[in-house]
Amino acid sequence: MSQSAPEYTLAAHPTTVGDARASTKPVRVTPTLVIGGHDVIVAAGPCSVEGYDMLLASARHVQAAGGTLLRGGAFKPRTSPYAFQGLGEEGLLLLASVREQTGMPIVTEVMDTRQVARVAQIADVLQVGARNMQNFPLLAELGRAGKPVLLKRGASARISELLLAAEYVIANGNERVILCERGIRTFETITRNTLDISAIPVLKAETHLPVIVDPSHAGGRADLVLPLALAAIAAGADGLIVEVHPDPSTARSDADQQLTFAQFTDLMHGISLIAAATNRAVRKPIPSPVVPNIATSDGAAMSHDTRRLAEETLAEETLAEETLAEETLAEETLAVVAA
Amino acid sequence: MSQSAPEYTLAAHPTTVGDARASTKPVRVTPTLVIGGHDVIVAAGPCSVEGYDMLLASARHVQAAGGTLLRGGAFKPRTSPYAFQGLGEEGLLLLASVREQTGMPIVTEVMDTRQVARVAQIADVLQVGARNMQNFPLLAELGRAGKPVLLKRGASARISELLLAAEYVIANGNERVILCERGIRTFETITRNTLDISAIPVLKAETHLPVIVDPSHAGGRADLVLPLALAAIAAGADGLIVEVHPDPSTARSDADQQLTFAQFTDLMHGISLIAAATNRAVRKPIPSPVVPNIATSDGAAMSHDTRRLAEETLAEETLAEETLAEETLAEETLAVVAA
Amino acid sequence: MSQSAPEYTLAAHPTTVGDARASTKPVRVTPTLVIGGHDVIVAAGPCSVEGYDMLLASARHVQAAGGTLLRGGAFKPRTSPYAFQGLGEEGLLLLASVREQTGMPIVTEVMDTRQVARVAQIADVLQVGARNMQNFPLLAELGRAGKPVLLKRGASARISELLLAAEYVIANGNERVILCERGIRTFETITRNTLDISAIPVLKAETHLPVIVDPSHAGGRADLVLPLALAAIAAGADGLIVEVHPDPSTARSDADQQLTFAQFTDLMHGISLIAAATNRAVRKPIPSPVVPNIATSDGAAMSHDTRRLAEETLAEETLAEETLAEETLAEETLAVVAA
Amino acid sequence: MSQSAPEYTLAAHPTTVGDARASTKPVRVTPTLVIGGHDVIVAAGPCSVEGYDMLLASARHVQAAGGTLLRGGAFKPRTSPYAFQGLGEEGLLLLASVREQTGMPIVTEVMDTRQVARVAQIADVLQVGARNMQNFPLLAELGRAGKPVLLKRGASARISELLLAAEYVIANGNERVILCERGIRTFETITRNTLDISAIPVLKAETHLPVIVDPSHAGGRADLVLPLALAAIAAGADGLIVEVHPDPSTARSDADQQLTFAQFTDLMHGISLIAAATNRAVRKPIPSPVVPNIATSDGAAMSHDTRRLAEETLAEETLAEETLAEETLAEETLAVVAA
Repeated sequence: MSQSAPEYTLAAHPTTVGDARASTKPVRVTPTLVIGGHDVIVAAGPCSVEGYDMLLASARHVQAAGGTLLRGGAFKPRTSPYAFQGLGEEGLLLLASVREQTGMPIVTEVMDTRQVARVAQIADVLQVGARNMQNFPLLAELGRAGKPVLLKRGASARISELLLAAEYVIANGNERVILCERGIRTFETITRNTLDISAIPVLKAETHLPVIVDPSHAGGRADLVLPLALAAIAAGADGLIVEVHPDPSTARSDADQQLTFAQFTDLMHGISLIAAATNRAVRKPIPSPVVPNIATSDGAAMSHDTRRLAEETLAEETLAEETLAEETLAEETLAVVAA
Repeated sequence: MSQSAPEYTLAAHPTTVGDARASTKPVRVTPTLVIGGHDVIVAAGPCSVEGYDMLLASARHVQAAGGTLLRGGAFKPRTSPYAFQGLGEEGLLLLASVREQTGMPIVTEVMDTRQVARVAQIADVLQVGARNMQNFPLLAELGRAGKPVLLKRGASARISELLLAAEYVIANGNERVILCERGIRTFETITRNTLDISAIPVLKAETHLPVIVDPSHAGGRADLVLPLALAAIAAGADGLIVEVHPDPSTARSDADQQLTFAQFTDLMHGISLIAAATNRAVRKPIPSPVVPNIATSDGAAMSHDTRRLAEETLAEETLAEETLAEETLAEETLAVVAA
Repeated sequence: MSQSAPEYTLAAHPTTVGDARASTKPVRVTPTLVIGGHDVIVAAGPCSVEGYDMLLASARHVQAAGGTLLRGGAFKPRTSPYAFQGLGEEGLLLLASVREQTGMPIVTEVMDTRQVARVAQIADVLQVGARNMQNFPLLAELGRAGKPVLLKRGASARISELLLAAEYVIANGNERVILCERGIRTFETITRNTLDISAIPVLKAETHLPVIVDPSHAGGRADLVLPLALAAIAAGADGLIVEVHPDPSTARSDADQQLTFAQFTDLMHGISLIAAATNRAVRKPIPSPVVPNIATSDGAAMSHDTRRLAEETLAEETLAEETLAEETLAEETLAVVAA
Repeated sequence: MSQSAPEYTLAAHPTTVGDARASTKPVRVTPTLVIGGHDVIVAAGPCSVEGYDMLLASARHVQAAGGTLLRGGAFKPRTSPYAFQGLGEEGLLLLASVREQTGMPIVTEVMDTRQVARVAQIADVLQVGARNMQNFPLLAELGRAGKPVLLKRGASARISELLLAAEYVIANGNERVILCERGIRTFETITRNTLDISAIPVLKAETHLPVIVDPSHAGGRADLVLPLALAAIAAGADGLIVEVHPDPSTARSDADQQLTFAQFTDLMHGISLIAAATNRAVRKPIPSPVVPNIATSDGAAMSHDTRRLAEETLAEETLAEETLAEETLAEETLAVVAA
């Protein structure tokens, strides 16, 4: 697959004019998975890889609920040097093992130029965290890594700076960059960050790169993940990256913002409906065989009726959209291969 | 109608716990219109009232496309003293005249304590602009005005401050306050403001007051109004206030952010689909008899297929939802009267 | 005195080029007092007027320590409607009474267009608070009030917006506008606001209006008032407005940021030294006959040696500078009268 | 020299209470130079090392005007991958060569964990740029580098986060950390960043680490460097890092904010006066043998009279302070050695 077509050299300049959707060039992650195509893609999993059992359980639930990629941090950037810094190499091996069990591609963060080669051996998508968005040597190294890069917007980065950070990766030889809006730092303190929802249509208009959203870090609160995820899909995001944990209260990092499995199932149902309302679909949404359906106590949760309606609609949508999704994927694959 | 039930004294404290939706207390605007109930309500119209013809044309289009209230500025807060300051009293009279022609309730801004009594004679909803969110004498006067108040969040106001501003109105005797998120000021310069989409679920959780969104001022760009509107409804907003102008390029204020009639029709179709996907409906969405349907060139526009799908779905939704909407309205009316 | 010289119509455009200092046009407050001339002017007093005794004691101490104007709030803008709102009319009368006792000109806030005429009867300088910087009807009314206006920068106002707010006053007939930097709202939470120290030289370069600084609101912490005041004078501010209270711990508003009398004496000593180092002087710094000089415990306080050095230097400076100050004042008076 | 006294392990906790000045623990850079002691220390030089001649000329002028350290970038973090990225290794060698010529210690930036060992061979102080303040692997590596670290505050970093970043260096074995305030990102666009002047006294109170200020990046405008530098020293900064270039208009980076030699001489004169006014001194201010003293045209420049006064005062101050400075240095050296 050639990705060096000269017209894609500059991320900041879309290769086609007109309809924004059409001008997004999907990024291929695996032979059967692209991000930035017709389907909404969801990556989910625990903030930190804490052990095999919790990771496998998370992966299985994410997959059953319709998630496509498994996220999990092995190397963790933490504000304090005394906080849990991740399992490192051991975490990478756990991710690889769970991928073998589930078939789910893995997205994980890389923080150090010296780690890039090793993490690239394991991960399917290399994540650059918000704090490293302008770590230029790291970006340059990722340009040579041969794996797709999920580039998170810095908490105080202007959109123009995010695009130039993407340029560092692209200019160094790697066009497979996926942008991620994850909230910016403002004066508001009731949320951890302020999700810049406008960034989605702006980035879609300014560049051909796919744009996904991290509603977990944006709000920093589990009760906000669902409404922010719905908003992100409605605004045109190509996907989400969401933190899910078997028992968020015991998580070794970001305990406040990780979803329970039940909450994640609700989220997948909710975004399936929003995707359908905007003529898209969540990729291969496989309804969870055993929907836990435990009533959540947070205020933003969907009502029982909403969930039932969602499930019914989802069932219909799935039948209708799956054919279309497969056709679109086929077309995209051809388009990319032809490039 | 009594609104002085003691449990509603403090806006900052919801009267009920649990599901956020249920805890919103609808604000009655007219005998047949509430904001904050089951239906999504849209107020739209020109930024400034510039004359009778443009106002009537705007109102008729807004109404045909499914908008419920007519917005239009008579007294305009402008950053420069040399900019157009609105038609003032003449603008008020034009608003009253167009209401007579169309039956649409009017929302218009009041900036000065000395204007409150006069504007309250004409307007159905009194708007407090973002710059006046902490104009405490004005808020107190609006507490005595006897009309619902649309309180816009200040560009640098924390959510806690918005709630305390609402308290000024409520503590002075007027519980009919509708909150409006319209974007906050951040370091990002590619948009006029940054829509704080998280504010919607946070405000819904923190208070019983209805929450609407102004996607026009949030982005300051016509091409962002649609995606921001879709996101706002998906995140749970009770409605929108949108700027629409017969010919935005000639507008005497906010030319960059006002929608054409065709764009507004697209927006109404789009939010109808999102509302349906979240088990709500746009109030009485009356399809425009003559949909201009001119293809818009901006990148965020919906594709033709999406629009067609939207129209079909809308037709079905309307039938299904209208009954429910009327029932809900009836229940709400009873609930409010009983309070 | 004519203030309608056409060259001063636009605040945003300095009337002279070159040296910033020379291009500031002093604003006359009383026949013997200008702000924006050679001397550094300090206004100080309690946040709120709480009673006669505390106000008189504050005024006497401020005057003894070298302060020129008495500040004190009669009408208080408070974030919560349940907080102390000021003594109102009674507060105005107390201010007038203390002025009679001390001869100190008074600066106090006006919040409502309906109050302007009454407050202008009493006050020597009418203050517009940060929350009202874009209360355009109030600004217009102040253009007709016949008294100098102290215009505080809004917490999220760009400098260009502050200048256009000043334009509202000027365009309505009042050129006696004094700008005040009092901190802007940022993401930093360890201080109440972030003093934008750069605003001082920028405003001095962009306009001919005097610029003073409010170090009390900027930091919101008593221990930061001294270093911020020193920085402001070093950066070229024409003066300060500082909160001082006989017993800050009992203050009915802003208890955390008001200085004790001893701290205020330290501040006056400190800025006298900085003013001298930049070839200026604090206006008529009259050493307090009974300097309390109680060692303060906060970390930013000046050491005993510094204070002694300050006093000695002050004594010399006073002799040397007073003649110059009087000469400058005379020249300025002539210049203004001639305009 | 032992720096491992356990009481200094946590930067965030000052080791002594009371007077802030006393609680700063000086950081030793060379046997004869500490930062954070009685004297104000100035590092200056070009943004980027562009060649030998320009670097030597800059160093000689900085030294003659009273600067102590030479700054110059060899590895440059640039927002765009297409901008000049610095001379790299060649730049390091030029820095070493000029140090040999002038005896000036060198401060230069390191961006990549893989560069730390090499840069530490050459530089006397290793600078962490604002974009890398939370590059945790880099901070950890600097903990093992054996050279003092100049840690710049990130553009959107809270003070608490800056202190925790310093902790990363300290916790990894290196207590010689110097903090640098260089402006934060706010909504204001008239300056490149907003200098958070309050950060100086806050950091001095919260930690024992020295605090210096970068007025060049803070404002991003050459005309603001002088007033910001004066403000920084007045607020208690332990020193400055300033960009100076033989011909700023031709600079390959940051052309707008670099000072000419004449402007730098003015700056040194100005801060000498402010330092004296706060009972400190600029370290060994050696008056330039050939002071260019060309009148600068920018608005913030000091008047001729101010400069003359500055020079006279400087001469006196130098005599008076130098003895004291040497005594203080001796005491500090003893204190550090004893630790």
